[in-house]
Amino acid sequence: MSMEQPPLVKSAERTVRILETLAESHDHLTLSELQQRTGFPRSSLHALMRTLVELNWVETDSARSAFGIGPHALLTGTAYLDKDPALPFAQDCLEDLRDEIGQTVHFARRDGAHVLYLATRESREADHIIPRVGRRLPAHVTALGQVLLAQLTDDEVIALLPEPLTPLTDHTITDLAKLTGELDQVRTRGWSYEREQGTLGVACVAVAVDYRIPATDAISCSMPAALAPAEVEQITEAVIKHTRKLAATLRREGIR
Amino acid sequence: MSMEQPPLVKSAERTVRILETLAESHDHLTLSELQQRTGFPRSSLHALMRTLVELNWVETDSARSAFGIGPHALLTGTAYLDKDPALPFAQDCLEDLRDEIGQTVHFARRDGAHVLYLATRESREADHIIPRVGRRLPAHVTALGQVLLAQLTDDEVIALLPEPLTPLTDHTITDLAKLTGELDQVRTRGWSYEREQGTLGVACVAVAVDYRIPATDAISCSMPAALAPAEVEQITEAVIKHTRKLAATLRREGIR
Repeated sequence: MSMEQPPLVKSAERTVRILETLAESHDHLTLSELQQRTGFPRSSLHALMRTLVELNWVETDSARSAFGIGPHALLTGTAYLDKDPALPFAQDCLEDLRDEIGQTVHFARRDGAHVLYLATRESREADHIIPRVGRRLPAHVTALGQVLLAQLTDDEVIALLPEPLTPLTDHTITDLAKLTGELDQVRTRGWSYEREQGTLGVACVAVAVDYRIPATDAISCSMPAALAPAEVEQITEAVIKHTRKLAATLRREGIR
Repeated sequence: MSMEQPPLVKSAERTVRILETLAESHDHLTLSELQQRTGFPRSSLHALMRTLVELNWVETDSARSAFGIGPHALLTGTAYLDKDPALPFAQDCLEDLRDEIGQTVHFARRDGAHVLYLATRESREADHIIPRVGRRLPAHVTALGQVLLAQLTDDEVIALLPEPLTPLTDHTITDLAKLTGELDQVRTRGWSYEREQGTLGVACVAVAVDYRIPATDAISCSMPAALAPAEVEQITEAVIKHTRKLAATLRREGIR
């Protein structure tokens, strides 16, 4: 933090921490649970919750004893999507790609050590778990994340990722040296492939969208892990072709 | 505001007002523009913006001179959808309804004088404007809004809506007395219908989901305004049938 910068505003920081804590929790949280999870003093928390409820950013259950994210948080959050100049082009790309390969396809952006899903087009026969727009997964477990981590140097990757890496399945790469080895292969061949590292029964191939260096965005296809190698190869070629076309369009449009 | 309640926390209120202001703006905003739109003092705004950028709730453009909504606002906002117990059932209902009628269908909730779109399933031949999840429209211009306003008494509607009502097209009802007349018809027949009141070329029929009184949620179908009356009638019957089934399911599941 530079010395010239003003300090963070405590109430503002607490406000977004409360919202993030509510967002991460599966259930509504009571004031005591929020106090426990945030460590904020009860009196401060009480006044902040009243403010957020009043402004529709937090809602209470019918007994007014527990809190959850409110509708105005949704309104504001999705504005991130509305303002992204690359997204409409990426959505067109996903439509074309799904029409060609018939599998579920995604457009995502790296957010630190995670990938954030910005658009998804579902396979007609989707029977596996589909990340929804606005959801986030650890970068190291997904093909999307691996192809975007491969845009960084090994030193940058090591500085970015927590250790140990959290496993989501028995196939998740949890060893950082093994991951950087995998990223090296991704750099050489230009695409990433993971099989059941994020979700059992699902494989995924991803290609970075080359309109920024390092690339922040990638396109992926998630497919049943049981597909034959020839089918995977065909899908990979289609993902490469459509993602290159998207990158060319974005550069032509001057979107950076 | 009750006298027993603590006052609103000024920095928290400013934090969410800044986020809402950024969300409502089509472009990134400079500090001066934000100051103009919010009326907050520049020093306070500067410290709040630094806090929100640091926490990834706001992002800056490459020149660091203008601000927009950041990725963590998206993450948090979509948590509102994840935690809604009615939404998965409503999504199933939309799938079935679209499969039956082949038009774009929506699930939305009233948010004061607006409706907030929580789920959409697009027609295969969608060639008209489709509200996206997390977007909001004035209640009085939409069939969804009209059917939910009809759940309230005329006095409640009059207290809720701004006057004059803002027109979106030449067909928008802007006269409150005319609107309450229309709502009276909606109450009698049990569904709402609007033609080009929100978007030229588009008509919409909506039915409230009876699992809360007054109902907060509704299902609608938007369709080309040029459809023949017999087709509209068939679509209306399908929307009624599927929405009733959804309400019965929600009540059976104890979702209130």
